[in-house]
Amino acid sequence: MSAITFFTSVNEQLQFVEQRMREQAGDGQHPDLKSALEHLLSAGGKRIRPTLGLLVGNMLGAPEEKLVTLGASVELLHTATLVHDDLIDGALLRRGMPTLNARWSPAATVLTGDFLFSRAAKLAAETDYLPLMKLFAETLGIIVNGELTQMFSSHGMIDRNNYYNRIYAKTASLFEMSALAATMVATEDEEIRSAMKAFGYEVGMAFQIVDDILDFAGDQSTVGKPIGSDLLNGLVTLPAIYFAEANPYNEDVLSLPGGGWKETARVQRLVDAIRESRAIGQALEEARKAVSRALNSLDVAPTSPEKDALEDLAKFIVDRKI
Amino acid sequence: MSAITFFTSVNEQLQFVEQRMREQAGDGQHPDLKSALEHLLSAGGKRIRPTLGLLVGNMLGAPEEKLVTLGASVELLHTATLVHDDLIDGALLRRGMPTLNARWSPAATVLTGDFLFSRAAKLAAETDYLPLMKLFAETLGIIVNGELTQMFSSHGMIDRNNYYNRIYAKTASLFEMSALAATMVATEDEEIRSAMKAFGYEVGMAFQIVDDILDFAGDQSTVGKPIGSDLLNGLVTLPAIYFAEANPYNEDVLSLPGGGWKETARVQRLVDAIRESRAIGQALEEARKAVSRALNSLDVAPTSPEKDALEDLAKFIVDRKI
Repeated sequence: MSAITFFTSVNEQLQFVEQRMREQAGDGQHPDLKSALEHLLSAGGKRIRPTLGLLVGNMLGAPEEKLVTLGASVELLHTATLVHDDLIDGALLRRGMPTLNARWSPAATVLTGDFLFSRAAKLAAETDYLPLMKLFAETLGIIVNGELTQMFSSHGMIDRNNYYNRIYAKTASLFEMSALAATMVATEDEEIRSAMKAFGYEVGMAFQIVDDILDFAGDQSTVGKPIGSDLLNGLVTLPAIYFAEANPYNEDVLSLPGGGWKETARVQRLVDAIRESRAIGQALEEARKAVSRALNSLDVAPTSPEKDALEDLAKFIVDRKI
Repeated sequence: MSAITFFTSVNEQLQFVEQRMREQAGDGQHPDLKSALEHLLSAGGKRIRPTLGLLVGNMLGAPEEKLVTLGASVELLHTATLVHDDLIDGALLRRGMPTLNARWSPAATVLTGDFLFSRAAKLAAETDYLPLMKLFAETLGIIVNGELTQMFSSHGMIDRNNYYNRIYAKTASLFEMSALAATMVATEDEEIRSAMKAFGYEVGMAFQIVDDILDFAGDQSTVGKPIGSDLLNGLVTLPAIYFAEANPYNEDVLSLPGGGWKETARVQRLVDAIRESRAIGQALEEARKAVSRALNSLDVAPTSPEKDALEDLAKFIVDRKI
């Protein structure tokens, strides 16, 4: 099975998820809101979170209707956080497309994000399962809390724990929710639930670590934003942490907590040094280990084509674009 | 019983609501977020929404713990919408206190609003009752949708239906939710649920109509914002609608849909004319009728001190500050 066959296996269900998301802009919504949603949804993205939920749910025999609803809820929640994030960062491009706030007023952007939150919550409620609503509320709390922490934390800080907490809140929490929610509508077996939760968590952590590697080692045209942009924003990610640990007396490293990340020339030099160092490989190795823990959690499930697809998804996470 | 005795009767429970709200900033939250919440909560307000829920729930024998949780959820949801609203309007003062966005960056303000949404959802989930979570998600949808409609609708539009939809979304929906949610944790009797929902709806509509009257007829120091500020923002509220209906050929009225609301001198003249016209009395009469429908819905409940208090609350809505 080739690395992206796993998308194909849920292709039809992903179309249903897409449709469910687009329906949220229907029924008496304002045309401008509709066109905003259309813009956001057509910008696309890989829909990796719904794919994860669909594959897990299919493997465990969950009802398709609930998986589609959950997939739409998770992806809209993700989209809502992106809309507010882009506003906060003043980002003008995402995935190579203009962001909402590049075209709209901040007011309309705030409200569109709020609208997406409300629709994600409504879809989660439509699953008719209270523990899922709780999971939804908790995950939303974790994500927002993570964003607040990131905003308030001193930038340029080199701190492994801070980094892991941050990528859990930002990314892995929603992967975790996606996998766990799909399991919850399939089985009450606690062992399977906890294994699938762990699968989502590990895959999500690996996904973000690889994203952070691509910010150093990727190709600008593929990544869709300037190389080193995290560091330029004061965010010290895993490759930079490994580099800093190996080169504690490096002048550029030492400058970071005091604001050195604001100096473009310095950051460029540091980015080049990190790209050429062992740090990239070490970070990648860490992502690979997370994927391998994820694969171990799949042991609770018997062999099946869906399980194979989940293994492919996990491996794809570290192999993409590198 | 004097008009504000109804607050006294739930005073102790309101303290629990207050405490539950403040707890949301605890446990590892960032000090800046804590101080923002402290600022928002200390700005106070009458806590009329939780009071409504507590009185309804007490009357129907609902468990106090759930009423307190619901009250905190409703008030945090309300606060979240205010935070985003103030950001959108660029408002610097609310209730005579600096707004969050007067002191903070837009980014921090967006995220603090999101944080409050997430905590309101979490509290709603803590009631452990799925229909409540659905009600919460629906109400959030109605509120946000109303704000979007308000933003996109042509300002200066003189339209009764648009007005009623707007104040339902903005205010009455949350009063309705507050009364209905408190009923839902007390009884499954559909007649009582629908009567209490109607009570919340009517009281909420009356509340907003009176607010809109105060924007014309109130005293600037009591209202806390300049007289006529709705009209200056292009929002045509009930007193202006009555005035326009009685004076369809008034030059200032005719100018509104085309942007006349942007001319300060014109709006000032119109505000003075409305203040001296029968429109104020007509709008007030409409609020009184809503309250009287609210009182009729109370017929489903037997006489009790809590029912008396609810009657007082309903009457207080139209009598305050006029």
